[in-house]
Amino acid sequence: MLSLKTIELYFHSLQDSICLGLDNADGKGQFKEDLWDRLEGGGGRTRTFSNGNVIEKGGVNFSAVHGPCPEFLRKEAGLKESEQAEFYATGVSLVIHPVNPMVPIIHMNVRYLKAGNLEWFGGGIDLTPHYIFEEDAKFFHTHIKSVCDEHNIAYYPEFKKWADDYFFIQHRNETRGIGGIFFDRLSAKDGISMEDRFHFVQAIGNNFLPIYLPLIEKNKDKSYTEANRQWQLLRRGRYVEFNLVYDRGTKFGLLTNGRTESILMSLPPTANWEYANQPEKDTPEEKTLSLLKKGINWAE
Amino acid sequence: MLSLKTIELYFHSLQDSICLGLDNADGKGQFKEDLWDRLEGGGGRTRTFSNGNVIEKGGVNFSAVHGPCPEFLRKEAGLKESEQAEFYATGVSLVIHPVNPMVPIIHMNVRYLKAGNLEWFGGGIDLTPHYIFEEDAKFFHTHIKSVCDEHNIAYYPEFKKWADDYFFIQHRNETRGIGGIFFDRLSAKDGISMEDRFHFVQAIGNNFLPIYLPLIEKNKDKSYTEANRQWQLLRRGRYVEFNLVYDRGTKFGLLTNGRTESILMSLPPTANWEYANQPEKDTPEEKTLSLLKKGINWAE
Repeated sequence: MLSLKTIELYFHSLQDSICLGLDNADGKGQFKEDLWDRLEGGGGRTRTFSNGNVIEKGGVNFSAVHGPCPEFLRKEAGLKESEQAEFYATGVSLVIHPVNPMVPIIHMNVRYLKAGNLEWFGGGIDLTPHYIFEEDAKFFHTHIKSVCDEHNIAYYPEFKKWADDYFFIQHRNETRGIGGIFFDRLSAKDGISMEDRFHFVQAIGNNFLPIYLPLIEKNKDKSYTEANRQWQLLRRGRYVEFNLVYDRGTKFGLLTNGRTESILMSLPPTANWEYANQPEKDTPEEKTLSLLKKGINWAE
Repeated sequence: MLSLKTIELYFHSLQDSICLGLDNADGKGQFKEDLWDRLEGGGGRTRTFSNGNVIEKGGVNFSAVHGPCPEFLRKEAGLKESEQAEFYATGVSLVIHPVNPMVPIIHMNVRYLKAGNLEWFGGGIDLTPHYIFEEDAKFFHTHIKSVCDEHNIAYYPEFKKWADDYFFIQHRNETRGIGGIFFDRLSAKDGISMEDRFHFVQAIGNNFLPIYLPLIEKNKDKSYTEANRQWQLLRRGRYVEFNLVYDRGTKFGLLTNGRTESILMSLPPTANWEYANQPEKDTPEEKTLSLLKKGINWAE
Protein backbone atom coordinates (compact mmCIF):
# COMPACT_ATOMS: atom_id res chain seq x y z
CA MET A 1 0.00 0.00 0.00
CA LEU A 2 1.38 3.35 -1.07
CA SER A 3 1.62 5.78 1.84
CA LEU A 4 1.45 9.56 1.62
CA LYS A 5 4.71 9.72 3.55
CA THR A 6 6.50 7.61 0.93
CA ILE A 7 5.34 9.89 -1.85
CA GLU A 8 6.18 13.05 0.03
CA LEU A 9 9.65 11.81 0.95
CA TYR A 10 10.33 10.91 -2.64
CA PHE A 11 9.44 14.40 -3.89
CA HIS A 12 11.44 15.94 -1.08
CA SER A 13 14.57 13.99 -2.00
CA LEU A 14 13.95 14.59 -5.73
CA GLN A 15 14.20 18.31 -5.10
CA ASP A 16 17.51 17.74 -3.32
CA SER A 17 19.05 15.66 -6.06
CA ILE A 18 17.89 17.98 -8.86
CA CYS A 19 19.22 21.08 -7.10
CA LEU A 20 22.53 19.38 -6.44
CA GLY A 21 22.83 18.32 -10.07
CA LEU A 22 22.03 21.81 -11.34
CA ASP A 23 24.38 23.47 -8.84
CA ASN A 24 27.19 21.26 -10.13
CA ALA A 25 26.32 21.87 -13.77
CA ASP A 26 26.30 25.61 -13.24
CA GLY A 27 29.59 25.74 -11.36
CA LYS A 28 29.06 29.29 -10.11
CA GLY A 29 25.61 29.93 -8.69
CA GLN A 30 23.77 28.01 -6.02
CA PHE A 31 20.17 27.47 -5.09
CA LYS A 32 18.92 29.51 -2.16
CA GLU A 33 16.23 28.10 0.06
CA ASP A 34 13.06 29.60 1.47
CA LEU A 35 10.97 27.55 3.86
CA TRP A 36 7.34 28.53 4.17
CA ASP A 37 4.23 27.44 6.00
CA ARG A 38 0.73 27.44 4.67
CA LEU A 39 -1.77 28.96 7.05
CA GLU A 40 -4.37 26.23 6.43
CA GLY A 41 -1.86 23.37 6.71
CA GLY A 42 1.47 22.17 5.35
CA GLY A 43 4.11 24.21 3.62
CA GLY A 44 6.99 24.10 1.22
CA ARG A 45 10.61 24.52 0.37
CA THR A 46 11.17 26.98 -2.44
CA ARG A 47 14.64 26.96 -3.99
CA THR A 48 15.63 29.70 -6.39
CA PHE A 49 18.68 30.34 -8.47
CA SER A 50 19.94 33.51 -10.10
CA ASN A 51 22.88 34.85 -12.08
CA GLY A 52 24.81 31.64 -12.57
CA ASN A 53 27.19 30.67 -15.35
CA VAL A 54 24.58 28.53 -17.04
CA ILE A 55 21.32 29.36 -15.27
CA GLU A 56 20.17 32.98 -15.40
CA LYS A 57 17.14 32.33 -13.22
CA GLY A 58 15.46 29.19 -12.04
CA GLY A 59 13.34 27.69 -9.36
CA VAL A 60 12.74 24.21 -7.99
CA ASN A 61 9.79 24.12 -5.65
CA PHE A 62 8.74 21.38 -3.27
CA SER A 63 5.48 21.56 -1.36
CA ALA A 64 3.23 19.35 0.71
CA VAL A 65 0.02 21.08 1.67
CA HIS A 66 -3.28 19.97 3.14
CA GLY A 67 -6.48 21.29 4.66
CA PRO A 68 -10.12 21.69 3.74
CA CYS A 69 -10.63 21.03 0.05
CA PRO A 70 -10.59 24.32 -1.92
CA GLU A 71 -13.50 25.01 -4.24
CA PHE A 72 -11.83 24.32 -7.61
CA LEU A 73 -10.56 20.99 -6.33
CA ARG A 74 -13.97 20.02 -4.98
CA LYS A 75 -15.27 20.41 -8.52
CA GLU A 76 -12.37 18.46 -10.01
CA ALA A 77 -12.95 15.68 -7.50
CA GLY A 78 -16.69 15.69 -8.16
CA LEU A 79 -17.61 16.24 -4.51
CA LYS A 80 -21.19 16.99 -3.52
CA GLU A 81 -21.92 20.39 -2.04
CA SER A 82 -22.67 19.06 1.40
CA GLU A 83 -19.66 16.74 1.44
CA GLN A 84 -16.91 17.65 3.90
CA ALA A 85 -13.50 16.80 2.47
CA GLU A 86 -9.84 17.30 3.11
CA PHE A 87 -7.19 17.53 0.43
CA TYR A 88 -3.52 16.74 0.41
CA ALA A 89 -1.13 17.74 -2.37
CA THR A 90 2.58 17.26 -2.73
CA GLY A 91 4.98 17.62 -5.60
CA VAL A 92 7.97 19.22 -7.24
CA SER A 93 7.75 21.93 -9.87
CA LEU A 94 10.64 23.54 -11.68
CA VAL A 95 11.51 25.97 -14.44
CA ILE A 96 15.03 26.82 -15.60
CA HIS A 97 15.84 29.91 -17.70
CA PRO A 98 19.39 29.52 -19.02
CA VAL A 99 21.87 32.31 -19.80
CA ASN A 100 22.85 31.08 -23.26
CA PRO A 101 20.05 31.37 -25.86
CA MET A 102 21.21 28.06 -27.34
CA VAL A 103 20.30 26.20 -24.13
CA PRO A 104 16.56 25.45 -23.92
CA ILE A 105 14.20 26.47 -21.11
CA ILE A 106 12.93 23.41 -19.29
CA HIS A 107 9.88 22.83 -17.12
CA MET A 108 8.95 19.78 -15.09
CA ASN A 109 6.20 19.09 -12.63
CA VAL A 110 5.41 15.88 -10.76
CA ARG A 111 2.63 15.85 -8.23
CA TYR A 112 0.26 13.76 -6.18
CA LEU A 113 -3.18 14.90 -5.14
CA LYS A 114 -5.79 13.48 -2.82
CA ALA A 115 -9.23 15.05 -2.46
CA GLY A 116 -11.80 13.24 -0.38
CA ASN A 117 -11.54 9.60 -1.41
CA LEU A 118 -10.01 10.29 -4.80
CA GLU A 119 -6.30 10.38 -5.49
CA TRP A 120 -4.18 10.79 -8.57
CA PHE A 121 -0.78 11.68 -9.98
CA GLY A 122 -0.16 14.41 -12.51
CA GLY A 123 2.71 16.22 -14.11
CA GLY A 124 4.89 16.36 -17.14
CA ILE A 125 8.12 17.62 -18.60
CA ASP A 126 8.49 19.90 -21.60
CA LEU A 127 11.18 21.81 -23.39
CA THR A 128 11.12 25.36 -24.76
CA PRO A 129 14.17 26.01 -26.92
CA HIS A 130 14.76 29.61 -28.00
CA TYR A 131 16.36 28.01 -31.05
CA ILE A 132 15.15 24.59 -32.05
CA PHE A 133 17.94 22.14 -32.89
CA GLU A 134 16.37 19.07 -34.38
CA GLU A 135 18.89 16.68 -32.85
CA ASP A 136 18.18 18.08 -29.38
CA ALA A 137 14.44 17.83 -29.94
CA LYS A 138 14.84 14.22 -31.04
CA PHE A 139 17.07 13.40 -28.09
CA PHE A 140 14.57 14.94 -25.67
CA HIS A 141 11.50 13.19 -27.04
CA THR A 142 13.25 9.87 -27.66
CA HIS A 143 14.51 9.79 -24.09
CA ILE A 144 11.08 10.59 -22.67
CA LYS A 145 9.41 8.06 -24.93
CA SER A 146 11.75 5.31 -23.75
CA VAL A 147 10.97 6.17 -20.09
CA CYS A 148 7.25 6.07 -20.88
CA ASP A 149 7.49 2.86 -22.89
CA GLU A 150 9.12 1.02 -20.01
CA HIS A 151 5.95 1.61 -18.00
CA ASN A 152 3.15 1.56 -20.50
CA ILE A 153 3.31 1.60 -24.27
CA ALA A 154 0.18 3.76 -24.37
CA TYR A 155 1.68 6.56 -22.25
CA TYR A 156 3.92 8.41 -24.68
CA PRO A 157 1.47 8.86 -27.56
CA GLU A 158 -1.32 9.96 -25.22
CA PHE A 159 0.77 12.23 -22.98
CA LYS A 160 2.72 13.71 -25.90
CA LYS A 161 -0.53 14.79 -27.56
CA TRP A 162 -1.75 16.13 -24.22
CA ALA A 163 1.38 18.31 -23.97
CA ASP A 164 0.95 19.56 -27.55
CA ASP A 165 -2.62 20.59 -26.75
CA TYR A 166 -1.83 22.01 -23.33
CA PHE A 167 1.30 24.04 -24.08
CA PHE A 168 -0.38 25.99 -26.85
CA ILE A 169 -0.50 29.77 -27.05
CA GLN A 170 -3.85 30.23 -28.75
CA HIS A 171 -3.50 33.96 -29.46
CA ARG A 172 -0.12 33.41 -31.15
CA ASN A 173 -1.18 30.19 -32.84
CA GLU A 174 2.04 28.55 -31.74
CA THR A 175 3.11 25.96 -29.18
CA ARG A 176 5.17 27.19 -26.23
CA GLY A 177 8.06 25.01 -27.27
CA ILE A 178 8.58 21.51 -28.63
CA GLY A 179 6.30 19.98 -25.97
CA GLY A 180 7.13 16.78 -24.18
CA ILE A 181 4.59 14.98 -22.03
CA PHE A 182 1.71 16.15 -19.88
CA PHE A 183 -0.57 13.95 -17.80
CA ASP A 184 -3.14 14.35 -15.09
CA ARG A 185 -5.58 12.34 -12.99
CA LEU A 186 -3.58 9.12 -13.25
CA SER A 187 -5.42 6.96 -10.74
CA ALA A 188 -5.71 3.23 -10.24
CA LYS A 189 -7.66 1.77 -13.14
CA ASP A 190 -7.52 -0.69 -16.04
CA GLY A 191 -5.28 -2.96 -14.01
CA ILE A 192 -2.77 -0.17 -13.32
CA SER A 193 -2.24 0.34 -9.59
CA MET A 194 -1.31 3.56 -7.80
CA GLU A 195 2.06 1.92 -7.13
CA ASP A 196 2.55 1.55 -10.90
CA ARG A 197 1.62 5.20 -11.40
CA PHE A 198 4.06 6.21 -8.68
CA HIS A 199 6.88 4.23 -10.30
CA PHE A 200 6.20 6.03 -13.56
CA VAL A 201 6.20 9.46 -11.91
CA GLN A 202 9.44 8.54 -10.13
CA ALA A 203 10.99 7.51 -13.43
CA ILE A 204 10.11 10.91 -14.93
CA GLY A 205 11.54 12.74 -11.92
CA ASN A 206 14.71 10.63 -11.86
CA ASN A 207 15.27 11.23 -15.56
CA PHE A 208 15.23 15.01 -15.29
CA LEU A 209 19.00 15.36 -14.86
CA PRO A 210 19.91 12.68 -17.45
CA ILE A 211 17.71 14.56 -19.93
CA TYR A 212 18.61 18.16 -19.17
CA LEU A 213 22.30 17.99 -18.27
CA PRO A 214 23.37 16.75 -21.74
CA LEU A 215 21.38 19.60 -23.32
CA ILE A 216 23.22 22.04 -21.07
CA GLU A 217 26.62 20.45 -21.74
CA LYS A 218 26.13 20.43 -25.49
CA ASN A 219 25.00 24.04 -25.81
CA LYS A 220 26.22 26.12 -22.89
CA ASP A 221 29.49 27.18 -24.47
CA LYS A 222 28.14 27.95 -27.92
CA SER A 223 28.87 31.51 -28.97
CA TYR A 224 25.96 33.81 -29.60
CA THR A 225 25.31 37.34 -30.83
CA GLU A 226 23.35 40.25 -29.43
CA ALA A 227 20.66 39.39 -32.01
CA ASN A 228 20.45 35.85 -30.56
CA ARG A 229 20.05 37.36 -27.10
CA GLN A 230 17.27 39.66 -28.32
CA TRP A 231 15.46 36.69 -29.83
CA GLN A 232 15.81 34.82 -26.54
CA LEU A 233 14.17 37.74 -24.73
CA LEU A 234 11.25 37.78 -27.19
CA ARG A 235 10.78 34.02 -26.76
CA ARG A 236 10.77 34.54 -23.01
CA GLY A 237 8.00 37.07 -23.55
CA ARG A 238 5.95 34.27 -25.09
CA TYR A 239 6.75 32.10 -22.09
CA VAL A 240 5.32 34.81 -19.83
CA GLU A 241 2.22 35.05 -22.02
CA PHE A 242 1.60 31.32 -21.76
CA ASN A 243 2.14 31.16 -18.02
CA LEU A 244 0.01 34.17 -17.13
CA VAL A 245 -2.81 33.67 -19.66
CA TYR A 246 -3.18 29.89 -19.96
CA ASP A 247 -1.27 27.88 -17.38
CA ARG A 248 -3.74 26.20 -15.05
CA GLY A 249 -1.29 25.78 -12.19
CA THR A 250 -0.45 29.48 -12.26
CA LYS A 251 -4.08 30.57 -12.53
CA PHE A 252 -5.31 28.26 -9.78
CA GLY A 253 -2.43 29.31 -7.57
CA LEU A 254 -3.03 33.02 -8.05
CA LEU A 255 -6.80 32.78 -7.76
CA THR A 256 -6.76 30.57 -4.67
CA ASN A 257 -4.45 32.69 -2.62
CA GLY A 258 -1.37 30.56 -3.21
CA ARG A 259 2.17 31.68 -2.38
CA THR A 260 2.67 34.22 -5.19
CA GLU A 261 6.46 34.26 -5.15
CA SER A 262 6.64 30.46 -5.46
CA ILE A 263 4.06 30.38 -8.22
CA LEU A 264 5.67 33.15 -10.27
CA MET A 265 9.14 31.70 -9.81
CA SER A 266 8.52 30.30 -13.32
CA LEU A 267 8.81 33.76 -14.91
CA PRO A 268 12.06 34.69 -16.66
CA PRO A 269 14.56 37.21 -15.26
CA THR A 270 14.01 39.48 -18.27
CA ALA A 271 11.59 39.33 -21.17
CA ASN A 272 10.98 41.57 -24.13
CA TRP A 273 8.04 42.52 -26.30
CA GLU A 274 8.28 44.12 -29.70
CA TYR A 275 5.34 45.09 -31.89
CA ALA A 276 4.78 42.65 -34.76
CA ASN A 277 8.26 41.11 -34.76
CA GLN A 278 8.78 38.90 -37.81
CA PRO A 279 12.00 36.96 -38.38
CA GLU A 280 13.58 37.24 -41.80
CA LYS A 281 13.31 34.46 -44.32
CA ASP A 282 15.66 31.47 -44.07
CA THR A 283 16.95 32.32 -40.61
CA PRO A 284 17.21 30.04 -37.56
CA GLU A 285 14.53 32.22 -35.94
CA GLU A 286 12.12 31.60 -38.80
CA LYS A 287 12.89 27.89 -38.74
CA THR A 288 12.20 27.80 -35.00
CA LEU A 289 8.80 29.46 -35.46
CA SER A 290 7.93 27.00 -38.22
CA LEU A 291 8.50 24.13 -35.76
CA LEU A 292 6.35 25.57 -32.98
CA LYS A 293 3.31 23.55 -33.91
CA LYS A 294 1.40 20.54 -32.70
CA GLY A 295 1.78 17.01 -33.96
CA ILE A 296 5.47 16.87 -34.87
CA ASN A 297 6.75 13.36 -34.31
CA TRP A 298 10.18 13.98 -32.74
CA ALA A 299 10.76 10.62 -31.08
CA GLU A 300 12.68 7.97 -32.94
CA MET B 1 -29.08 62.97 -32.27
CA LEU B 2 -25.60 61.50 -31.86
CA SER B 3 -24.49 59.60 -34.97
CA LEU B 4 -22.04 56.71 -35.05
CA LYS B 5 -20.08 58.60 -37.69
CA THR B 6 -19.61 61.59 -35.38
CA ILE B 7 -18.27 59.39 -32.60
CA GLU B 8 -15.98 57.44 -34.92
CA LEU B 9 -14.59 60.60 -36.51
CA TYR B 10 -13.87 62.05 -33.10
CA PHE B 11 -11.88 58.98 -31.99
CA HIS B 12 -10.08 58.94 -35.33
CA SER B 13 -8.96 62.55 -34.98
CA LEU B 14 -8.14 62.04 -31.28
CA GLN B 15 -5.62 59.39 -32.29
CA ASP B 16 -4.06 61.88 -34.73
CA SER B 17 -3.73 64.69 -32.24
CA ILE B 18 -2.35 62.45 -29.48
CA CYS B 19 0.25 60.90 -31.77
CA LEU B 20 1.31 64.31 -33.04
CA GLY B 21 1.65 65.64 -29.48
CA LEU B 22 3.70 62.64 -28.38
CA ASP B 23 5.90 62.76 -31.50
CA ASN B 24 6.71 66.38 -30.68
CA ALA B 25 7.33 65.67 -27.02
CA ASP B 26 9.70 62.86 -27.89
CA GLY B 27 11.67 64.79 -30.47
CA LYS B 28 13.39 61.72 -31.88
CA GLY B 29 11.07 58.80 -32.53
CA GLN B 30 7.86 58.75 -34.51
CA PHE B 31 4.74 56.64 -34.52
CA LYS B 32 4.54 54.03 -37.25
CA GLU B 33 1.18 53.07 -38.64
CA ASP B 34 -0.39 49.70 -39.40
CA LEU B 35 -3.81 49.60 -41.05
CA TRP B 36 -5.78 46.43 -40.58
CA ASP B 37 -9.13 44.99 -41.52
CA ARG B 38 -11.28 42.75 -39.41
CA LEU B 39 -12.60 39.75 -41.27
CA GLU B 40 -16.12 40.08 -39.84
CA GLY B 41 -16.33 43.85 -40.44
CA GLY B 42 -14.46 47.09 -39.78
CA GLY B 43 -10.83 47.49 -38.89
CA GLY B 44 -8.32 49.73 -37.26
CA ARG B 45 -5.27 51.91 -37.31
CA THR B 46 -2.56 50.74 -34.94
CA ARG B 47 0.22 53.21 -34.24
CA THR B 48 3.31 52.09 -32.41
CA PHE B 49 6.40 53.85 -31.16
CA SER B 50 9.78 52.50 -30.17
CA ASN B 51 13.21 53.65 -29.07
CA GLY B 52 12.53 57.36 -28.74
CA ASN B 53 14.22 59.93 -26.51
CA VAL B 54 11.34 59.90 -24.06
CA ILE B 55 9.19 56.95 -25.09
CA GLU B 56 10.83 53.54 -25.03
CA LYS B 57 7.74 51.78 -26.36
CA GLY B 58 4.18 52.87 -26.85
CA GLY B 59 1.05 52.31 -28.82
CA VAL B 60 -2.02 54.34 -29.69
CA ASN B 61 -4.71 52.21 -31.25
CA PHE B 62 -7.85 53.32 -33.07
CA SER B 63 -10.46 50.82 -34.16
CA ALA B 64 -14.02 50.77 -35.45
CA VAL B 65 -15.35 47.25 -35.78
CA HIS B 66 -18.76 45.73 -36.34
CA GLY B 67 -20.51 42.47 -37.19
CA PRO B 68 -22.59 39.81 -35.48
CA CYS B 69 -22.53 40.30 -31.73
CA PRO B 70 -19.84 38.09 -30.12
CA GLU B 71 -20.92 35.87 -27.25
CA PHE B 72 -19.42 37.78 -24.32
CA LEU B 73 -21.04 40.99 -25.57
CA ARG B 74 -24.40 39.29 -25.97
CA LYS B 75 -24.24 38.47 -22.29
CA GLU B 76 -23.18 42.00 -21.35
CA ALA B 77 -26.03 43.44 -23.41
CA GLY B 78 -28.51 40.98 -21.88
CA LEU B 79 -29.62 39.62 -25.27
CA LYS B 80 -31.87 36.58 -25.45
CA GLU B 81 -30.45 33.45 -27.02
CA SER B 82 -32.70 33.63 -30.07
CA GLU B 83 -32.11 37.34 -30.60
CA GLN B 84 -30.13 38.27 -33.71
CA ALA B 85 -27.97 41.30 -33.03
CA GLU B 86 -25.17 43.32 -34.54
CA PHE B 87 -22.54 45.15 -32.59
CA TYR B 88 -20.46 48.20 -33.34
CA ALA B 89 -17.47 49.32 -31.30
CA THR B 90 -15.08 52.20 -31.77
CA GLY B 91 -12.47 53.80 -29.59
CA VAL B 92 -8.91 54.76 -28.85
CA SER B 93 -6.64 52.85 -26.49
CA LEU B 94 -3.10 53.78 -25.55
CA VAL B 95 -0.22 52.81 -23.31
CA ILE B 96 3.12 54.65 -23.07
CA HIS B 97 6.23 53.09 -21.51
CA PRO B 98 8.80 55.87 -21.02
CA VAL B 99 12.59 55.55 -21.09
CA ASN B 100 13.25 57.42 -17.85
CA PRO B 101 12.07 55.58 -14.71
CA MET B 102 11.01 58.94 -13.25
CA VAL B 103 8.39 59.40 -15.99
CA PRO B 104 5.20 57.43 -15.26
CA ILE B 105 3.58 54.85 -17.51
CA ILE B 106 0.19 56.09 -18.71
CA HIS B 107 -2.85 54.28 -20.04
CA MET B 108 -6.02 55.73 -21.52
CA ASN B 109 -9.00 54.17 -23.21
CA VAL B 110 -12.13 55.83 -24.54
CA ARG B 111 -14.71 53.77 -26.35
CA TYR B 112 -18.26 53.54 -27.59
CA LEU B 113 -20.16 50.29 -27.88
CA LYS B 114 -23.49 49.39 -29.42
CA ALA B 115 -24.97 45.89 -29.11
CA GLY B 116 -28.49 45.33 -30.37
CA ASN B 117 -30.49 48.28 -29.07
CA LEU B 118 -28.16 49.11 -26.22
CA GLU B 119 -25.32 51.59 -26.42
CA TRP B 120 -22.82 52.96 -23.95
CA PHE B 121 -19.50 54.73 -23.47
CA GLY B 122 -16.66 53.37 -21.41
CA GLY B 123 -13.03 54.08 -20.69
CA GLY B 124 -10.71 55.74 -18.27
CA ILE B 125 -7.25 57.09 -17.73
CA ASP B 126 -4.75 55.94 -15.12
CA LEU B 127 -1.15 56.48 -14.17
CA THR B 128 1.51 53.94 -13.17
CA PRO B 129 4.59 55.69 -11.82
CA HIS B 130 7.68 53.54 -11.26
CA TYR B 131 8.43 56.06 -8.52
CA ILE B 132 5.51 57.88 -6.96
CA PHE B 133 6.06 61.63 -6.57
CA GLU B 134 3.22 62.98 -4.49
CA GLU B 135 3.05 66.30 -6.34
CA ASP B 136 2.69 64.45 -9.67
CA ALA B 137 0.00 62.20 -8.24
CA LYS B 138 -1.87 65.24 -6.94
CA PHE B 139 -1.53 67.06 -10.26
CA PHE B 140 -2.82 64.02 -12.13
CA HIS B 141 -5.85 63.39 -9.93
CA THR B 142 -6.71 67.06 -9.46
CA HIS B 143 -6.68 67.63 -13.20
CA ILE B 144 -8.90 64.62 -13.86
CA LYS B 145 -11.25 65.59 -11.05
CA SER B 146 -11.72 69.07 -12.51
CA VAL B 147 -12.54 67.58 -15.95
CA CYS B 148 -15.05 65.23 -14.30
CA ASP B 149 -16.57 67.95 -12.12
CA GLU B 150 -17.32 70.14 -15.14
CA HIS B 151 -19.62 67.39 -16.39
CA ASN B 152 -21.06 65.81 -13.31
CA ILE B 153 -20.04 66.23 -9.71
CA ALA B 154 -20.78 62.56 -9.08
CA TYR B 155 -18.35 61.29 -11.71
CA TYR B 156 -14.97 61.65 -10.04
CA PRO B 157 -15.71 59.93 -6.71
CA GLU B 158 -17.50 57.07 -8.45
CA PHE B 159 -15.01 56.57 -11.29
CA LYS B 160 -11.97 57.05 -9.05
CA LYS B 161 -13.16 54.23 -6.79
CA TRP B 162 -13.90 52.11 -9.85
CA ALA B 163 -10.28 52.58 -11.02
CA ASP B 164 -8.93 51.68 -7.56
CA ASP B 165 -10.95 48.47 -7.61
CA TYR B 166 -10.23 47.64 -11.24
CA PHE B 167 -6.48 48.29 -11.42
CA PHE B 168 -5.73 46.00 -8.54
CA ILE B 169 -3.23 43.14 -8.63
CA GLN B 170 -4.89 40.71 -6.25
CA HIS B 171 -1.99 38.25 -5.99
CA ARG B 172 0.42 41.07 -5.05
CA ASN B 173 -2.09 42.90 -2.88
CA GLU B 174 -1.17 46.15 -4.58
CA THR B 175 -2.74 48.55 -7.07
CA ARG B 176 -1.16 48.74 -10.53
CA GLY B 177 -0.31 52.38 -9.99
CA ILE B 178 -1.99 55.45 -8.49
CA GLY B 179 -5.23 54.81 -10.38
CA GLY B 180 -7.21 57.57 -12.01
CA ILE B 181 -10.70 56.99 -13.34
CA PHE B 182 -12.44 54.00 -14.87
CA PHE B 183 -16.02 53.91 -16.15
CA ASP B 184 -18.21 51.64 -18.22
CA ARG B 185 -21.78 51.31 -19.49
CA LEU B 186 -22.43 55.04 -19.44
CA SER B 187 -25.76 55.17 -21.24
CA ALA B 188 -28.59 57.69 -21.34
CA LYS B 189 -30.26 57.74 -17.94
CA ASP B 190 -31.11 59.90 -14.92
CA GLY B 191 -31.52 62.91 -17.21
CA ILE B 192 -28.05 62.44 -18.72
CA SER B 193 -28.20 62.08 -22.51
CA MET B 194 -25.81 60.15 -24.76
CA GLU B 195 -24.69 63.57 -26.03
CA ASP B 196 -23.72 64.52 -22.47
CA ARG B 197 -21.81 61.24 -22.09
CA PHE B 198 -20.04 61.88 -25.38
CA HIS B 199 -18.99 65.38 -24.30
CA PHE B 200 -17.52 63.89 -21.13
CA VAL B 201 -15.61 61.22 -23.04
CA GLN B 202 -14.33 63.89 -25.44
CA ALA B 203 -13.17 65.98 -22.50
CA ILE B 204 -11.18 63.04 -21.15
CA GLY B 205 -9.65 62.37 -24.57
CA ASN B 206 -8.82 66.03 -25.16
CA ASN B 207 -7.15 66.31 -21.78
CA PHE B 208 -4.72 63.46 -22.36
CA LEU B 209 -1.93 65.67 -23.69
CA PRO B 210 -2.48 68.51 -21.15
CA ILE B 211 -2.21 65.88 -18.41
CA TYR B 212 0.68 63.74 -19.67
CA LEU B 213 2.96 66.26 -21.39
CA PRO B 214 3.68 68.21 -18.18
CA LEU B 215 4.55 64.93 -16.43
CA ILE B 216 6.97 64.15 -19.26
CA GLU B 217 8.46 67.66 -19.26
CA LYS B 218 8.97 67.70 -15.50
CA ASN B 219 10.66 64.29 -15.25
CA LYS B 220 12.23 63.31 -18.55
CA ASP B 221 15.64 64.86 -17.89
CA LYS B 222 15.99 63.70 -14.31
CA SER B 223 19.13 61.66 -13.76
CA TYR B 224 18.76 58.06 -12.70
CA THR B 225 20.94 55.14 -11.68
CA GLU B 226 21.16 51.55 -12.84
CA ALA B 227 19.31 50.62 -9.63
CA ASN B 228 16.46 52.95 -10.66
CA ARG B 229 16.39 51.26 -14.06
CA GLN B 230 16.24 47.81 -12.43
CA TRP B 231 13.32 48.93 -10.29
CA GLN B 232 11.55 50.26 -13.39
CA LEU B 233 11.93 46.83 -15.01
CA LEU B 234 10.46 45.09 -11.95
CA ARG B 235 7.52 47.50 -11.93
CA ARG B 236 6.99 46.77 -15.61
CA GLY B 237 6.84 43.10 -14.66
CA ARG B 238 3.89 43.94 -12.43
CA TYR B 239 2.30 45.81 -15.34
CA VAL B 240 2.58 42.65 -17.44
CA GLU B 241 1.05 40.60 -14.62
CA PHE B 242 -1.94 42.91 -14.38
CA ASN B 243 -2.53 43.06 -18.13
CA LEU B 244 -2.23 39.32 -18.76
CA VAL B 245 -3.96 38.04 -15.61
CA TYR B 246 -6.70 40.60 -14.90
CA ASP B 247 -7.29 43.14 -17.65
CA ARG B 248 -10.70 42.51 -19.18
CA GLY B 249 -9.93 44.19 -22.50
CA THR B 250 -6.83 42.03 -22.96
CA LYS B 251 -8.59 38.83 -21.93
CA PHE B 252 -11.66 39.46 -24.10
CA GLY B 253 -9.44 40.42 -27.00
CA LEU B 254 -7.26 37.32 -26.76
CA LEU B 255 -10.15 34.95 -26.13
CA THR B 256 -12.32 36.32 -28.94
CA ASN B 257 -9.74 36.11 -31.66
CA GLY B 258 -8.86 39.80 -31.61
CA ARG B 259 -5.81 41.25 -33.32
CA THR B 260 -3.10 39.97 -30.96
CA GLU B 261 -0.40 42.48 -31.90
CA SER B 262 -2.74 45.43 -31.27
CA ILE B 263 -3.98 44.01 -27.98
CA LEU B 264 -0.50 43.23 -26.64
CA MET B 265 0.88 46.58 -27.76
CA SER B 266 0.31 47.52 -24.09
CA LEU B 267 3.19 45.31 -22.93
CA PRO B 268 6.52 46.94 -22.07
CA PRO B 269 9.64 46.63 -24.24
CA THR B 270 11.47 44.86 -21.40
CA ALA B 271 10.33 43.61 -18.02
CA ASN B 272 12.09 41.81 -15.20
CA TRP B 273 11.17 39.34 -12.51
CA GLU B 274 13.20 38.62 -9.42
CA TYR B 275 12.28 36.17 -6.70
CA ALA B 276 10.91 37.87 -3.57
CA ASN B 277 12.34 41.32 -4.23
CA GLN B 278 11.94 43.58 -1.20
CA PRO B 279 13.04 47.22 -1.24
CA GLU B 280 15.13 48.38 1.70
CA LYS B 281 13.67 50.50 4.45
CA ASP B 282 13.27 54.24 3.93
CA THR B 283 13.97 54.15 0.22
CA PRO B 284 11.92 55.74 -2.59
CA GLU B 285 11.11 52.18 -3.73
CA GLU B 286 9.64 51.29 -0.35
CA LYS B 287 7.69 54.55 -0.28
CA THR B 288 6.28 53.80 -3.72
CA LEU B 289 5.09 50.35 -2.62
CA SER B 290 3.47 51.84 0.47
CA LEU B 291 1.39 54.12 -1.77
CA LEU B 292 0.18 51.36 -4.09
CA LYS B 293 -3.11 50.89 -2.31
CA LYS B 294 -6.76 51.73 -2.76
CA GLY B 295 -8.55 54.70 -1.33
CA ILE B 296 -5.83 57.37 -1.28
CA ASN B 297 -7.40 60.77 -1.82
CA TRP B 298 -4.93 62.44 -4.18
CA ALA B 299 -7.15 65.16 -5.64
CA GLU B 300 -7.17 68.58 -4.03
